Amino acid sequence: MQHIDTLIHARWIIPVVPEHSWHEDHALAVHDGTIIDLLPAAEAARKYRADVSLHLEHHALIPGLINTHTHVAMSLFRGLADDLPLMEWLNHHIWPAERRWVSPDFVHDGSRLALAEMLRGGTTCFNDMYFFPDETARLAAENHMRASIGMILIDFPTVWAADADEYIRKGLKLHDDYRNHPLIKTTFAPHAPYTVSDAPLQRVATLAEELDVPIHMHVHETADEVAASVEQHIMRPLQRLDTLGLVSPRLLAVHMTQLDDDDIELMARLGGHVVHCPESNLKLASGFCPLDRLLKAGINVALGTDGAASNNDLDMFGEMRSAALLAKAVAGDASAVPAATALSMATINGARALGIDAETGSLEIGKSADLVAVDLGGLDSQPLYNPISQLVYATGRDKVSDVWIAGKHVVKDATLTTMDENMIRHKAVAWGEKIRAADEQQ
Amino acid sequence: MQHIDTLIHARWIIPVVPEHSWHEDHALAVHDGTIIDLLPAAEAARKYRADVSLHLEHHALIPGLINTHTHVAMSLFRGLADDLPLMEWLNHHIWPAERRWVSPDFVHDGSRLALAEMLRGGTTCFNDMYFFPDETARLAAENHMRASIGMILIDFPTVWAADADEYIRKGLKLHDDYRNHPLIKTTFAPHAPYTVSDAPLQRVATLAEELDVPIHMHVHETADEVAASVEQHIMRPLQRLDTLGLVSPRLLAVHMTQLDDDDIELMARLGGHVVHCPESNLKLASGFCPLDRLLKAGINVALGTDGAASNNDLDMFGEMRSAALLAKAVAGDASAVPAATALSMATINGARALGIDAETGSLEIGKSADLVAVDLGGLDSQPLYNPISQLVYATGRDKVSDVWIAGKHVVKDATLTTMDENMIRHKAVAWGEKIRAADEQQ
Repeated sequence: MQHIDTLIHARWIIPVVPEHSWHEDHALAVHDGTIIDLLPAAEAARKYRADVSLHLEHHALIPGLINTHTHVAMSLFRGLADDLPLMEWLNHHIWPAERRWVSPDFVHDGSRLALAEMLRGGTTCFNDMYFFPDETARLAAENHMRASIGMILIDFPTVWAADADEYIRKGLKLHDDYRNHPLIKTTFAPHAPYTVSDAPLQRVATLAEELDVPIHMHVHETADEVAASVEQHIMRPLQRLDTLGLVSPRLLAVHMTQLDDDDIELMARLGGHVVHCPESNLKLASGFCPLDRLLKAGINVALGTDGAASNNDLDMFGEMRSAALLAKAVAGDASAVPAATALSMATINGARALGIDAETGSLEIGKSADLVAVDLGGLDSQPLYNPISQLVYATGRDKVSDVWIAGKHVVKDATLTTMDENMIRHKAVAWGEKIRAADEQQ
Repeated sequence: MQHIDTLIHARWIIPVVPEHSWHEDHALAVHDGTIIDLLPAAEAARKYRADVSLHLEHHALIPGLINTHTHVAMSLFRGLADDLPLMEWLNHHIWPAERRWVSPDFVHDGSRLALAEMLRGGTTCFNDMYFFPDETARLAAENHMRASIGMILIDFPTVWAADADEYIRKGLKLHDDYRNHPLIKTTFAPHAPYTVSDAPLQRVATLAEELDVPIHMHVHETADEVAASVEQHIMRPLQRLDTLGLVSPRLLAVHMTQLDDDDIELMARLGGHVVHCPESNLKLASGFCPLDRLLKAGINVALGTDGAASNNDLDMFGEMRSAALLAKAVAGDASAVPAATALSMATINGARALGIDAETGSLEIGKSADLVAVDLGGLDSQPLYNPISQLVYATGRDKVSDVWIAGKHVVKDATLTTMDENMIRHKAVAWGEKIRAADEQQ
């Protein structure tokens, strides 16, 4: 018998690759943070002797969820100003609040709140864009969470950097600091076509190639953005990004609600990834991303919640459900974007977009043990005809019982093992009181 | 000091009427099943001596949610056949399963599963349409749940009735049986314009007037339905219902995804109610209900989940969120359908549609104590700037801790007090095994 760290038996094991498949009464063998086997339970009992052996009788075991578009620190603005027209929301609430509050402390406490929420809900990896990314990176590393942290870049000065040179210099410092980190990666994160001019975008294209990192950017979020670009540049934003050399398999184009046939053809031909954020797009009335058309064009589409200021949660279960439901109505086809596709979007597609699919995104031998156990034994999970369908259409994140990242048991019986929930809650409440008092004076 | 049954202190009390308002550090006084007072906590302590006094320090207390369109027994088909084109779903899965399985036992066990799920999630009242409504009514009465039960009517014979006469006769028997019941009401429930012909619809219009009961019907669910009616009757379905005398404040028109200006004007002028089922409309790709336009036309719009076969849950928190988010994108306006409106749709608007708004739907003195306590103390509820916004955009039904119906404490510390969860789960699992085996032979 082979001695290993952990053997997890589960009622259903859903590897995601191949899509639509699951194993019943199998076990997953984990050693040194890596998945080393996936085999029938009876065989596992003969083959392995494990330090920890778990029997999850009513659970589905799935890959850790990957939230491919976040602004985690903004969790401190959750619900600060809802149900407002976009420009009023930005001009009178979010931007003033950011000018007033964003600091290393704010980013630290907001990110910690978000990480705790994400871990409890089965998210093991996130792709972030915000100021003071060094704080977010450090926090993710300390709490053993997988993350891709954006080297943010925007034309105007902020408390983080004064100009393009400083944004890029500070970004590269971050990249250097985490160059060999097993969990923390970096991306270039130019904010959006309308907030970053040509010269810094060309530098990003060159540097991304040299350093071999992805480019994370809001693209075609609203109709106004597209119209303004056509007026100013005589090109749609995506065309402009293409002339600047940014459309490639490195690009994660977030939102993409305003797309014509040429946009889709361009993305498909050049291998860019789309990050779909259905709930944010609905809440801000940005438009409808043509998800089914993108997938049918062969484009890799990942899933993100966006920040909690425009969602208002970081719940990837809710986001999978919204994505699968909305896509059917937008396509006018009840068979569009089946549950298994939504689950792929929330796992392996995110890993592919971030260039980490050799390490995570599915339960395959040799990959990192990034795992989530979901309890499907409750009354509201009955009857159960198809576990993937049940996960996407009838399961809340409250059913997540256990989470592992690279083999480390970070959520155990629905409790965080690396973070102090009470302390995080108290800090968030205190921030909320300060922020509300100032917002009311706007 | 006045002696009363129950005094509930809560961090926030959200009465729903008036909309957008809440009270902090107040208490709700309940006696003999009725709300008798709503007052500041300190004053309550001086005024009332209660048998039971509760202090919900992190909770919002809201009216019980009203699920205004259900087929509760269909919970046994939850997830039986997802992601299929509508006609394949109906012809090859749902209808064969109904022909094979629907019986008093099926309806009893399916309804019980649904009632348990609804109660745990804060739903205190539902408006149902299905076969063997007597089973569903009896179960609701036994478990002290408020319900409006449909006297179903459809042109073709089923195991419940052979023809219009028998459907109506059995319906009227049900109506008589519950004529004076405090919690159980009846409605006429002609299935849809395309499945019920003119003569029985005219009888329904007459009888509904005589007996003073609502009419619960699927209307304008799909574009095909409208087109077929125009071809067969030279009228849109709603026009035809109007010529038959069915469009009035008695009508609950469910779905209404296909509406032109004249349809909206007709409903507004004649005072018909709309029941919006956003998740079912998305999942079956039925279309987009123009919710914001309906509300702006002054139409009362309630909210329903539809059956679990097309949703796949009976979660009114999820449905509120979906309604508020989707409406913004459909209207192209981020300020459309604010959170407080979604909460009204899920409470008082449902009560109005069902004609029970003198009894329930808001926390007003003299109304029934139909109450739900929602724990907003958790990490993922922080910070909290507006409790109504938090409830709609960032709260799952798993946060419901306590539920009262007419003063009876039916969910206590997240546990059902009137039903045996284990037994219900086991029954549902057993049904699932039988139904799956048969479905695989289709």
